Amino acid sequence: MSDVLKELSELLEQRKNADPETSYVASLYQEGTDKILKKLGEEATEVVIAGKGGDRKEIIHETADLWFHCLVLLAHNNINSQSVLDELERRFGLSGLEEKANRRK
Amino acid sequence: MSDVLKELSELLEQRKNADPETSYVASLYQEGTDKILKKLGEEATEVVIAGKGGDRKEIIHETADLWFHCLVLLAHNNINSQSVLDELERRFGLSGLEEKANRRK
Amino acid sequence: MSDVLKELSELLEQRKNADPETSYVASLYQEGTDKILKKLGEEATEVVIAGKGGDRKEIIHETADLWFHCLVLLAHNNINSQSVLDELERRFGLSGLEEKANRRK
Amino acid sequence: MSDVLKELSELLEQRKNADPETSYVASLYQEGTDKILKKLGEEATEVVIAGKGGDRKEIIHETADLWFHCLVLLAHNNINSQSVLDELERRFGLSGLEEKANRRK
Repeated sequence: MSDVLKELSELLEQRKNADPETSYVASLYQEGTDKILKKLGEEATEVVIAGKGGDRKEIIHETADLWFHCLVLLAHNNINSQSVLDELERRFGLSGLEEKANRRK
Repeated sequence: MSDVLKELSELLEQRKNADPETSYVASLYQEGTDKILKKLGEEATEVVIAGKGGDRKEIIHETADLWFHCLVLLAHNNINSQSVLDELERRFGLSGLEEKANRRK
Repeated sequence: MSDVLKELSELLEQRKNADPETSYVASLYQEGTDKILKKLGEEATEVVIAGKGGDRKEIIHETADLWFHCLVLLAHNNINSQSVLDELERRFGLSGLEEKANRRK
Repeated sequence: MSDVLKELSELLEQRKNADPETSYVASLYQEGTDKILKKLGEEATEVVIAGKGGDRKEIIHETADLWFHCLVLLAHNNINSQSVLDELERRFGLSGLEEKANRRK
């Protein structure tokens, strides 16, 4: 079950009311867009480094970090992460694909 | 429903047998790690540009592109996208959070 | 002699009047800031990939590409590349260092 | 005069013998390639953010940071920054351009 993204999005929404002194996410919100984007760029670089290094554990770890900061960016812009999943679904016609797969059975 | 990631991962797995001439994903696999990482870096930059621009539609669009190329990187390394979700869950203690939420009711 | 940057800056200035159909740089100017930044992010990613790969020739090649697109960004913003060199000099107190080096002789 | 890059390269070479406790650059060398590349990616992201923001002072500041970390990467790989300038010169045929300019006089 990948409701993790949904739960995490809700958590990130709640953190908007948290204390920036004690919550990392609240401190990112407070520092604002540039800080969030800077972190996102950092994490993307770390995915590239891990991907080039080829260590699976690091790739998983860094991709999780990158997605997390993407979710922070979305929350900061009041965008539900479901919108990104919908866009992915729309673009790659998954439902159509599923249909075709079902028909084949 | 966010099983989109799961379905997309399966689709990306199938594309390993597709023709690089007709499938974009198959062409990425064939060009290899550097090409996939290059695309990932490109898409991350586009998220940063969109995030700085502040247009919600563009942020959604570019984040979808970035996640898609992350999924390609994972598939190329035979990593299930669920591993990333598990890492996110583990790190941010969502189950613990859920528990606490349930207790409050 | 590193007047290459100066000459290149002048060249990039001239290209503002070139035909986007025949000049790559003119086409970047025409497409605008987002396109230039996207290219810059791409090239930075390629430096990271080359740096992780450790091939010296590739590192040189990709760093040149990155600096080139930085120069395009500067020109597009009517910033002289000398301003960046001045900032580097100011920040790392090179003249002070030179002085110290001279005194040692 | 843009011998700044040359002097900075020499400075970065000397810092290889500096104490990582007191020298930022020595600490980067000690942490190694991944750390240097991570910083480079960070700085590139900051150039993109500044470029999108359009503040000239920030663009200069962040480009200087990016070039500085490129120089650190070069030094870490025992590559003279002149090699990058030579590559730029070679690729964009500056000497040829100079020649043409001279002929016009």
